[in-house]
Amino acid sequence: MFLQRVISTTLPSSTRLFSSIGSHDLSKAISELNQELESVFGEPPPSGLSGSIDNQSMTTRNSKLNTVEMDGKESFAGLTHIGSKGEAQMVDVSRKDISKRVAIARGKVILGQKVFDLVSANQMGKGDVVSVARLAGICGAKQTSNLIPLCHNINLTHVRVDLALNPRDFSVEIEGEAASDGKTGVEMEALTAVTVAGLTVYDMCKAASKNIQITDIRLEHKTGGKSGDWSREK
Amino acid sequence: MFLQRVISTTLPSSTRLFSSIGSHDLSKAISELNQELESVFGEPPPSGLSGSIDNQSMTTRNSKLNTVEMDGKESFAGLTHIGSKGEAQMVDVSRKDISKRVAIARGKVILGQKVFDLVSANQMGKGDVVSVARLAGICGAKQTSNLIPLCHNINLTHVRVDLALNPRDFSVEIEGEAASDGKTGVEMEALTAVTVAGLTVYDMCKAASKNIQITDIRLEHKTGGKSGDWSREK
Amino acid sequence: MFLQRVISTTLPSSTRLFSSIGSHDLSKAISELNQELESVFGEPPPSGLSGSIDNQSMTTRNSKLNTVEMDGKESFAGLTHIGSKGEAQMVDVSRKDISKRVAIARGKVILGQKVFDLVSANQMGKGDVVSVARLAGICGAKQTSNLIPLCHNINLTHVRVDLALNPRDFSVEIEGEAASDGKTGVEMEALTAVTVAGLTVYDMCKAASKNIQITDIRLEHKTGGKSGDWSREK
Amino acid sequence: MFLQRVISTTLPSSTRLFSSIGSHDLSKAISELNQELESVFGEPPPSGLSGSIDNQSMTTRNSKLNTVEMDGKESFAGLTHIGSKGEAQMVDVSRKDISKRVAIARGKVILGQKVFDLVSANQMGKGDVVSVARLAGICGAKQTSNLIPLCHNINLTHVRVDLALNPRDFSVEIEGEAASDGKTGVEMEALTAVTVAGLTVYDMCKAASKNIQITDIRLEHKTGGKSGDWSREK
Amino acid sequence: MFLQRVISTTLPSSTRLFSSIGSHDLSKAISELNQELESVFGEPPPSGLSGSIDNQSMTTRNSKLNTVEMDGKESFAGLTHIGSKGEAQMVDVSRKDISKRVAIARGKVILGQKVFDLVSANQMGKGDVVSVARLAGICGAKQTSNLIPLCHNINLTHVRVDLALNPRDFSVEIEGEAASDGKTGVEMEALTAVTVAGLTVYDMCKAASKNIQITDIRLEHKTGGKSGDWSREK
Amino acid sequence: MFLQRVISTTLPSSTRLFSSIGSHDLSKAISELNQELESVFGEPPPSGLSGSIDNQSMTTRNSKLNTVEMDGKESFAGLTHIGSKGEAQMVDVSRKDISKRVAIARGKVILGQKVFDLVSANQMGKGDVVSVARLAGICGAKQTSNLIPLCHNINLTHVRVDLALNPRDFSVEIEGEAASDGKTGVEMEALTAVTVAGLTVYDMCKAASKNIQITDIRLEHKTGGKSGDWSREK
Repeated sequence: MFLQRVISTTLPSSTRLFSSIGSHDLSKAISELNQELESVFGEPPPSGLSGSIDNQSMTTRNSKLNTVEMDGKESFAGLTHIGSKGEAQMVDVSRKDISKRVAIARGKVILGQKVFDLVSANQMGKGDVVSVARLAGICGAKQTSNLIPLCHNINLTHVRVDLALNPRDFSVEIEGEAASDGKTGVEMEALTAVTVAGLTVYDMCKAASKNIQITDIRLEHKTGGKSGDWSREK
Repeated sequence: MFLQRVISTTLPSSTRLFSSIGSHDLSKAISELNQELESVFGEPPPSGLSGSIDNQSMTTRNSKLNTVEMDGKESFAGLTHIGSKGEAQMVDVSRKDISKRVAIARGKVILGQKVFDLVSANQMGKGDVVSVARLAGICGAKQTSNLIPLCHNINLTHVRVDLALNPRDFSVEIEGEAASDGKTGVEMEALTAVTVAGLTVYDMCKAASKNIQITDIRLEHKTGGKSGDWSREK
Repeated sequence: MFLQRVISTTLPSSTRLFSSIGSHDLSKAISELNQELESVFGEPPPSGLSGSIDNQSMTTRNSKLNTVEMDGKESFAGLTHIGSKGEAQMVDVSRKDISKRVAIARGKVILGQKVFDLVSANQMGKGDVVSVARLAGICGAKQTSNLIPLCHNINLTHVRVDLALNPRDFSVEIEGEAASDGKTGVEMEALTAVTVAGLTVYDMCKAASKNIQITDIRLEHKTGGKSGDWSREK
Repeated sequence: MFLQRVISTTLPSSTRLFSSIGSHDLSKAISELNQELESVFGEPPPSGLSGSIDNQSMTTRNSKLNTVEMDGKESFAGLTHIGSKGEAQMVDVSRKDISKRVAIARGKVILGQKVFDLVSANQMGKGDVVSVARLAGICGAKQTSNLIPLCHNINLTHVRVDLALNPRDFSVEIEGEAASDGKTGVEMEALTAVTVAGLTVYDMCKAASKNIQITDIRLEHKTGGKSGDWSREK
Repeated sequence: MFLQRVISTTLPSSTRLFSSIGSHDLSKAISELNQELESVFGEPPPSGLSGSIDNQSMTTRNSKLNTVEMDGKESFAGLTHIGSKGEAQMVDVSRKDISKRVAIARGKVILGQKVFDLVSANQMGKGDVVSVARLAGICGAKQTSNLIPLCHNINLTHVRVDLALNPRDFSVEIEGEAASDGKTGVEMEALTAVTVAGLTVYDMCKAASKNIQITDIRLEHKTGGKSGDWSREK
Repeated sequence: MFLQRVISTTLPSSTRLFSSIGSHDLSKAISELNQELESVFGEPPPSGLSGSIDNQSMTTRNSKLNTVEMDGKESFAGLTHIGSKGEAQMVDVSRKDISKRVAIARGKVILGQKVFDLVSANQMGKGDVVSVARLAGICGAKQTSNLIPLCHNINLTHVRVDLALNPRDFSVEIEGEAASDGKTGVEMEALTAVTVAGLTVYDMCKAASKNIQITDIRLEHKTGGKSGDWSREK
C-alpha cells in the first residue's frame, strides 16, 4: 500500500495528520460535523455487546478506556461507518423512521471526438451503447449492497438512468435516480447506477480509444430522511 | 431519455451526428480505427446463424441487405460490441490466444479538507476507510462480469488495490491492478476495482459531506493480448 | 440480429408493423389496452428529470417534440417498461399501495418415455431429480431481480414449487407460487421459479436424451394489486 | 408435493413406475442408454471417500450393499447427476478433455396479436423489448451455474442471443448460443440464455396481456466433447 | 452418500431410526415439539394447490392419503422446512407479524499458538486479519438467502461482527449480530456472519498451519417473533 | 470491537503480543514458517507499483522504509494475505503452476437426541434435510470467492458433499470435496461446502431446538500444488 508514502513524503511530520490546519481547527471542524450528524443520524449506533467476554475484567477496563473512547469519538465523529474504536461498522438503522427516499447522481464519460462520433452514429441507429449502459446502470443499482460492504440491502421502488450525448466536450452525461421507502438513504444506489453505466460505456468503446475517462461522479439531489431535502447549487 | 435533447438542441441539424466534423472526416476516422481494430481483434466475430429462419427468402434478402450491412459495418466499426446491424454483442474470443494479461487503472475521490482530515486521522488509527475500500475494490473486480453486460466472466490470477491520501488536493488516490491468463483483457476488472473502491470511500464519508466527487477514472497501463503493451504518457 | 429479416421477408411492406391488422385497428387495440393499464398502473410513471440539462433550449424542444411524444405514448402504451421516447424503463412503484401479492405459474418439461421412466424410477428411490429441481426453483425465485433487468428486487414471504410426473405425455409438470407483501406483483418470481426448476430437470436428464423440451410456461393465477384477482379459465 | 398423486391415480399400480412399458423393456432401454452414456461420460464419476468413517464395518457392509448398488446403477444409469445410491451429484469432469464447446438453443414467446403489434411498433422505434431481452439473455448465460445446482461454473468465450418477431404466430423467436473451451458442455448456458431472454420479453409485455406463453425451449445444435457434433433434424 | 452406512453398521436394525429411544418415546418427543412449534409458527403453512391436476381423481386419492399425511405430519412435526409429505419447503411467513428481530451468534477459530502469535502481531499493526474477517462477516450476512436454500431474502437493518483474540486457547472468538424488522427471524444471518468471518480467518492463516479449526458455532441470543426472547444460559 | 479487551485484560503487558512465548521464540517460529512458506508459495507476491506516485521522494523513502519492511516481512511472514506493510492482499498466483487440486474437509452439526431422531425419521422418508444440505453445500462451494474477500474465483471440476447421521453423538457428519485444475488450492471451497451444508442443516432444524452446534470444521486432505499431498493423521 503506497498510502503512507505520500503523506510521509509530502508533509512535514508536524502536520502529517491534519494537512494544512492545526488540531485546534480540526476539533472545530469536528464539532460542526457532530451537529450536522446529530441531525442526520440521531443517537450513535449501539457499540455492540459490552463485556461479552470476561465480564469482571471488562468493568475495570471500561473505566480505563473511556477517555480513549472519547478521543475515538472525537476524531472519527464525521465518519459514521467508523466505530468508537476505529473499526468499520454498518450503521444501525433499526430505530430510524421510514420515509420516501430519492437520490439523483450524475457523472460523465469523456470519449474524445473520434469515439463520440461513433457513439453518435450508433445512437442514431439502434442506440445500443446508450441503451446497454442504461440497463447496466439499472441492474447495477440493484447490486449496490453486494458491492459496497457497509451498505444495507434495501428494496428499490424505482431506478432511472438517463444518458445524454454532449457534443460540447464529446462526453456521455449520465444521470441516475434511485428511490426507496425505507430507513436508509439511496445515494449509493444512485451513484452506483451512474458508475456502472459509465463503466459499461467505457467497455463498449474501449477498443476504439484508451483515452476514455469516467469523471465528475457526484450527488446532485436527495430527499427524505432526517436531513431532509438537498440539492447542489448550480 | 434526454439523449436526443442535447443533440437536437445544441447542434445545427446538418452536423447533428458528427459534432464538428463532416462525414468525410468520419469515414477517415473509421478507416483508421479499422486498422487499429484489425490489430486488436483480428477478424470480426461471427454474425450469428445466418438464415436460421426461412432460408429461402433469407437468400434473396441477404443480397438486398449487403449494402446496408456495409454501411452498418462502416459506421460502427470502432465499437466492437456493436454488431453489423447495430445491435449489442459480446465479442467472441474463442479464437484469441491465451496470454498473461495485466491492466492497471487509477482514479481519485476528492474529499475536501474537512473529510480528508477525518480520513487521515482514522487512517493513522486503524485505517479502516482505506482498508475497507481496498477490500471492496478487490471483491468488486471479481464481480465485473456480473455488472458489465458484455464482459466475459474470467478467472483473475491477481487483484491489487492501493489507496493513497494526497493532501495536495485533499483526495484519496486509488490504483487498481488486475491480472489473468486468458483470451480477453482485464481493463474492465482494473477499472471496476478502482470504481468500487471509490464508491466505498464515498459511502464511508458521505455523512460528513455531500461535496465528495469520484473522478479521473482511467486506464494507466496494460500488457498482453494482440495489442501488446501500452502505458499512458505522463 | 435476424429480427428484421422475418418481418422484411414475410410481410408486404404495407403491413410490416402491424401484422394482419391496419393501424386503425391498432389504435383501437391500444385504447383498449390503455383502459386496462389505467386499472393496473394508475397514472403513468414519471418521465424522468425534464430539462435536466440546458433548460432554456429544453422548453423550445419540448413543444417541438410533443407530437412525437404523443405518437410515442400511443404506440407503446401497452408496454409499461417502454418510456414515452421508446426507451426501456423500470416502472416506478413508489406510489402504489402495499398489498398481499400471490402468483402461481405452471410449465412442463417433456421428457419422452425413456427418460420419463428413468426419472420415475429415481423418484421412487430418493426423488432427487424432483427434489433438486424443486429447490432450484425456490432459489431461482429469489434471484428473479438479478436475472430480469427491469424487475424490482423484493422480499418474498413464500415460494412454493411442486413437480408432478405426468405419464400421459411423459412430462414433468411444474407449478410455482410466489407471495409477497409489497407494491409490485410477483408473476415474474413465480415464472422464474418454474423456469429454473425446468432447466434443472433438463440439466439432470440431458445425458439421457437431447429431445427434452421445456414448454407451456404461463401464469395461472394472481391475487393482489390494483388489478385484483385473476385466474386462467380452464 | 403433488407428484405421487398423478401416478398413483392415473396408472394401474402394476405399471406405476414404468408408464406403458414393462420392466423388461426398461432394462433394455437402460442398457441402450448405458452404451450411449459410455460414449458421453466414459467411466462413472468416483463415488466419494469409501469407508471414510468406521472403515472396519464399512468393508462388511460394502459386500452386503453391492447388489443394491448394482440395482442402483442400473435404474439410474441414464441420469448422470444421480449417484449409485440415488443421491444428487455434480459430475466430476476432472478427467475429461478440454475442447471447444458450442451449443445453440431455441425457444419462443407467444404474445398474441395485440401484444405482437405493440412489440413490432416498439421494435421499429428503438427496439427495446428486443434489445433488453437480448442483453438479459447474455447476462443470464453468465449466471447459469448460480441457478442450476449441479452445473459447473465455467468461463464462456462467447454468448450470442438473437430475437426474431414472427408474425405468422405472433411470437418472438429466441436463439441463444454459448461457447467455451473446457471440459463440460454449454447446453445449459445456451438454454438459460434463451429462457432468461424469454422471461424478460414476458416481463416487459405482461401488463398488456396475461396470455403470453414461453414455450418450445430446446437444444438445436451442439459441438465438442466426447459425443461430438449433434444437430436436430428439421 | 455414506449416510446409511453409519446407521446400518453401528446400530442393531431394531433401533435403526431412533438411536437409543423407542418409537413410543419418539411420539412423546414429537408431541412436546408440536406444542413448542405451535408457539413458534402458529398454524402450519398451506400445503400448496390441492388437486391442482386431475381434480376428480385427486379427491379419491386424498381420502386414501390422509392417514399417510397424518403419519407424515407426526414424524416430521419438528422440522418446519419439511412438508407433510416429506419434501423440503420454505416456511410461508405471509401471515406472521412484523416485529423487530435481533439474533446474536458466536463461534471460534482455534489457531494454535504459532498462528495466534502471528495474528496478534498483525493485529497490533493494522489488524487486517481481524478487519478483513469482520467485513467478510458483515457481507456474508447479506448473502444468507443466496446460500441457504429455504431462507427468506430479507432486509437487514443492522449487522455487527466482532472478533476477539483469546490467548487462553489461542483462538479468535467471533460474535455476529443481525437485526431486521420483519416476519422472519435473523438467526441464520447472525450464524452466517460468524461462519463467513471464521472462514475468512481460516483463509488468511491457512498458509501458516493446516491445523486450524472453526468450531462451536451456535446461537447465543434472540429477540422478537412469536417465541419472544431467548438467551443461552452460561 | 472487543478485540483488544481480551488481550489488554488477560495478559501482563510484557507478553501481550506473544501469548506465552517470548519474541525470541517468535522469530524462531517465524523462520520455520518462512521455510515452510517458501515451499508453498515460492517467492513473495509483487508489492505493487513501487513509486507509482511522486517517484523522486519514493526513492529516498524506500531506503528509509527498508528496515520497516524487514520487520514487516518478519512479523507477518506466516500470513501470506498480509503484505509487507501489514495490509490485506490477494496472493498473486500468476506464476504458479497449473496442477490438479483436490481438498477434502469435514465438520459436524451436533443436533441433540430429539432433533437427531426427527432427522433420522425424515431421512428414512425422502431424506430432505440431508439432500437439501448436500445441494446447498455444492452450491455454496461455487460461491466461495463471493464470500471470502481474498479468495480467487476459480472453476471447479468437481464438488462432492456427503452427510452421515452419527447416532453415537447425535450429529450429522459432513464431508466436502472440491477439485480444480488450476494455480490455487481448493481448501476454502471444500471448507465452504461443509460450512454451508452445516448452516443448512441448522436452518432446517432450528425450529426444533436452539441447542444445535456447528463444530469441528477442518481440512482433512489435500493434493496438488507445490506443497504436494497432505492428510490429517488419525
